[in-house]
Amino acid sequence: MENRPTILITNDDGYTAKGINSLIDAVSHLGDVIVIAPDGPRSGMSSAITITIPVRVTKVKDSEYIRIYKCTGTPVDCIKLALNKMSPRKPDIILSGVNHGSNASVNVLYSGTMGAVLEGCIHGIPSIGFSIESHDSEADFDYCIDSIRSITKSVLEGGLPEGVCLNVNYPTVDELKGHKVCRQAETYWIEEFEACKDPRGKNYYWLTGMPVNRKPHLTNTDDHWLSQGYATIVPTKIDLTADEAMKQISDTLKLD
Amino acid sequence: MENRPTILITNDDGYTAKGINSLIDAVSHLGDVIVIAPDGPRSGMSSAITITIPVRVTKVKDSEYIRIYKCTGTPVDCIKLALNKMSPRKPDIILSGVNHGSNASVNVLYSGTMGAVLEGCIHGIPSIGFSIESHDSEADFDYCIDSIRSITKSVLEGGLPEGVCLNVNYPTVDELKGHKVCRQAETYWIEEFEACKDPRGKNYYWLTGMPVNRKPHLTNTDDHWLSQGYATIVPTKIDLTADEAMKQISDTLKLD
Repeated sequence: MENRPTILITNDDGYTAKGINSLIDAVSHLGDVIVIAPDGPRSGMSSAITITIPVRVTKVKDSEYIRIYKCTGTPVDCIKLALNKMSPRKPDIILSGVNHGSNASVNVLYSGTMGAVLEGCIHGIPSIGFSIESHDSEADFDYCIDSIRSITKSVLEGGLPEGVCLNVNYPTVDELKGHKVCRQAETYWIEEFEACKDPRGKNYYWLTGMPVNRKPHLTNTDDHWLSQGYATIVPTKIDLTADEAMKQISDTLKLD
Repeated sequence: MENRPTILITNDDGYTAKGINSLIDAVSHLGDVIVIAPDGPRSGMSSAITITIPVRVTKVKDSEYIRIYKCTGTPVDCIKLALNKMSPRKPDIILSGVNHGSNASVNVLYSGTMGAVLEGCIHGIPSIGFSIESHDSEADFDYCIDSIRSITKSVLEGGLPEGVCLNVNYPTVDELKGHKVCRQAETYWIEEFEACKDPRGKNYYWLTGMPVNRKPHLTNTDDHWLSQGYATIVPTKIDLTADEAMKQISDTLKLD
């Protein structure tokens, strides 16, 4: 079937996670699926790439419409390897997730799920990250399957603007109230480390903490709409230039 | 001296790198310096955070105006630890680098140097990343010291707009032609992996490749001005929302 689109799938929870297998099930009828995903958890890997050690890839499944590889690298390594080595042709779409845990608000910057999506976008391929709020490894994904399928189908047909990908997050609800295209909330994390002592009396730290919304009164954000039971879709850019700040910064720096 | 500002410094090449020590020398007269930097190379770590293992911190120097810690984590871990545990008060400025290697154009997304800068910005602290084009561990940093000092001093005095940090890059030249406040060039990397076989005949891959500028005709970019011998300053945002794409995406998705 020569007109079947190629769908490249990855995640940051590893190829055996329930989320990525729910994603594969949700979209596999839409095209030929290639999965290249980490061999274990890579949460919080952002857009990290593996430089100081080599990366290995192993095929774990090969059927007519779906091939699955596991990779020792990061989610971004997975996308780069797929585009350079494993995918017979340029994918029509890249999907990442479904992540166990929200990638809304500032989490987009830490997320390995979204790192893979930004990487797809850098290469000019329509790319979407899907995440649910629950971190539970046995979380239920059924309530967002129709939405994932619908968004994937629309993007396969209509594409995405140049340099823009999608960060889609689902709240913990029995039934979605609907969808909102909205902004990344301005959050940051506080109380970020738990200090412990090892059996030899030496300090070590575990990253932990809680997110704080800097502007909770804003209602056009992913944080807000998730709290209201809506799926959120943030159009997300790979160009971080703050155009609106150019003049102020030139004035502050007073450089030749 | 109670009015001395607190300057927090990190990098991604590790606390012993020539670049971070050049940066410390360049700015230490401007305030009290706290350094928390990785204990070894963390290039390409982006905004990665350490979740699955604990992080350790060790003090390696403690004098009146400068304290240095090494950390087993990522550059972002270093900033989070500094803000939560090591810094007696909120730093007035965060500096990252000087990186051995350019973080211009799309490299801003992969860079551990810039990951730390984005983290400082998330916490509302004026933050600047400095990088030179050369990857040489013995590279010369003298030609950019005056510029680093001047930019740091101006930002200490004038601050930065909310949600905006600076990505400063220096070309390989004997003498800078000047400075340009400009945009992140639209680049991507090609030929990204070298395939090898280990002694047991199994494949592995080394990340490599070369950057390609998607729009080389644009002259308001960091790539362009670096090639002309100028230092580049890109005002860089932590909010990735593509406001201009909202309507088109709503139209494409046709969701409730």
